Amino acid sequence: MLSALRTRGPLTRAQLAEQTNLSRATLSSIIQTLLSKQALAERRGEDPAGPGLRGRGRPVSVLTLNPAGGLALGIDLGQRRIQVTISNVAHEFVASGAIACAERTPWVRRVELALDLVDNLTTRHEISLTALAGVGVGIVGPVAADARSERVELVRETVSAWFGVPVYVDNNTRLAALAEAVWGAGSGVDSALYLRLSYGVGGGLVLGGRLFAGAGGAAGELGHISVDRDGPACPCGGRGCLERYVSLTTLQAQCSDILDARDQTARDLLADAGTRIGEVLAAACNTVNPEVVVIGGELAETGDHLFKPLEAALRRHTHSQVHRTVRVTRAALGPDAAARGGIALVLTTALSALDQEASRLCIPPRPSTSAGTGGTPSTR
Amino acid sequence: MLSALRTRGPLTRAQLAEQTNLSRATLSSIIQTLLSKQALAERRGEDPAGPGLRGRGRPVSVLTLNPAGGLALGIDLGQRRIQVTISNVAHEFVASGAIACAERTPWVRRVELALDLVDNLTTRHEISLTALAGVGVGIVGPVAADARSERVELVRETVSAWFGVPVYVDNNTRLAALAEAVWGAGSGVDSALYLRLSYGVGGGLVLGGRLFAGAGGAAGELGHISVDRDGPACPCGGRGCLERYVSLTTLQAQCSDILDARDQTARDLLADAGTRIGEVLAAACNTVNPEVVVIGGELAETGDHLFKPLEAALRRHTHSQVHRTVRVTRAALGPDAAARGGIALVLTTALSALDQEASRLCIPPRPSTSAGTGGTPSTR
Repeated sequence: MLSALRTRGPLTRAQLAEQTNLSRATLSSIIQTLLSKQALAERRGEDPAGPGLRGRGRPVSVLTLNPAGGLALGIDLGQRRIQVTISNVAHEFVASGAIACAERTPWVRRVELALDLVDNLTTRHEISLTALAGVGVGIVGPVAADARSERVELVRETVSAWFGVPVYVDNNTRLAALAEAVWGAGSGVDSALYLRLSYGVGGGLVLGGRLFAGAGGAAGELGHISVDRDGPACPCGGRGCLERYVSLTTLQAQCSDILDARDQTARDLLADAGTRIGEVLAAACNTVNPEVVVIGGELAETGDHLFKPLEAALRRHTHSQVHRTVRVTRAALGPDAAARGGIALVLTTALSALDQEASRLCIPPRPSTSAGTGGTPSTR
Repeated sequence: MLSALRTRGPLTRAQLAEQTNLSRATLSSIIQTLLSKQALAERRGEDPAGPGLRGRGRPVSVLTLNPAGGLALGIDLGQRRIQVTISNVAHEFVASGAIACAERTPWVRRVELALDLVDNLTTRHEISLTALAGVGVGIVGPVAADARSERVELVRETVSAWFGVPVYVDNNTRLAALAEAVWGAGSGVDSALYLRLSYGVGGGLVLGGRLFAGAGGAAGELGHISVDRDGPACPCGGRGCLERYVSLTTLQAQCSDILDARDQTARDLLADAGTRIGEVLAAACNTVNPEVVVIGGELAETGDHLFKPLEAALRRHTHSQVHRTVRVTRAALGPDAAARGGIALVLTTALSALDQEASRLCIPPRPSTSAGTGGTPSTR
């Protein structure tokens, strides 16, 4: 139950019953105990259609983890922008800020800028980080599952040394995917496929409220699905990758006003791009049959000029069982999506270890019978 | 822990520790309690490389659920063959049998034939079905997530009325995928993508030991990923679907000896088919980055003639992080794969409800304080 509230945010009792598969009576008894121990808090009179909640309906009371129970920090070390966001375990965002940086800013300097920003924010908002549970950091470029790259290690070690808490590093597009699934356009669904259309084309797959990594940490790399088997080689190792055809970089080289739909050339290019993207999404949707496809990045802001051909191609190339059930939607979060995703990573990953610790502690410790075997439970 | 043993089969203590994230000491204490209550059984001196186990190493002792704890029945109502397999909850197969049927055999008759076969097997092997926990049935054709088709209802109701236990129905290719992930070529991995190359081309996606359905129950429909955007319309609703190009039906129309690799025409067709299949698998692998791709069906029996071009195309069109981590392998199970998958469905789905019931019962019942509120725990 704690894990559901941490991962999904505020939930009504009915939503908790659904998430935990516990009977109403059992749930009610557990909730009462946790409220009395101040592990949970109850808020009344809120609209379930508000931020972080799903569905619409009359005002009801929702349960959250106790907001004083801990903080999570999200950092996005983007190409041109550094974003910092702080939330408590009740999914309330308590501070947020960003600064621009140059593309050539070295990584060490980016991390310093982010730490300065955290310092400014905590001072200004009088936030104590003593209850900080973990930090999630988004970086540009691939982060392999074993994550032993120099850059990843540098970020992890510097940030971890600074705050003395666990630090999780992942690709910032994947973190944006996670944030959309927790707080944005994919909120409350079981499976969301995210595609970001910007200067690069990336994506992420979120299943059951968690970022799905796959064997090598590259699940959701939709920008590297091939659209032309004889196309040019891509630095990713593939050939004819979608990214080569529909990135802002490529499209702007063909039409500098690509984001201005009053331009006929732009509209034609967007229609072609939409069709190609829809075909790639069709292959991805036939593979995972997600509930929702969330599309973010600057190109998504062109709206129907991109989405109509995209959805037509998606429909034309998917199994009927797939296109009957999938919903395509624009991303809902702003430029802090990846930083929020860092927070979600802490809430879903770092703190699930705490849950396990807590349930372990629920087994009453045995009294030690002798000095030599004190720590080892008897096996008889 | 019970759930891990039910889903994964026999496990060593080390494997159980890994699956449950419990400390050695805690695990040891729980195991001892469950052994004393005969919920678990311990088997010694077995080779972990044997059926149903993963990895290789010296003989060690493995834990299973008590074999007397229940039975699961798997039925495959295939196009030309009806298969029945019975297993206990310790993952031991206790009986198995099959009969041929004609493609035009009506569904009611197929179910009758399957029930007769169960009757014969239980009589011959002196098996009592009083401890039957559930039945998993594989059928040909799509089974939507809401599963309200006439055929699905017919199968479910007839089988359920006969045995008086829960009945789960799914597409038989998807059940074969699940069986490969539990007992076959994908045993012990976290993510397996299965592709079946036969008269039809189907597939399935298994994540964390469970069949991943997706929003519409069509996840893993790899046969309906498009290989030609201008290709012919497919009854699935798509266009230019892989199945149209590489099914046995299509290939045999071009070369009746397609499965005989001594034939040059067959070899050329297999190479082309392998390339197309590899390209589709590349898109699917960039989406989910699975640990293993398992390929079954008659076409897989042509070995390297198919697999070499397939793997080359897969490598050429995947992100390096993906192709560094994915392993392509032939299916390991025989024609009873789908029936075994039915059993796995019972073990992972039906019985997980029992686990929840059991853990609910671990909360000591409160003494009733009055007749009127006897069944409702106090909330104070």
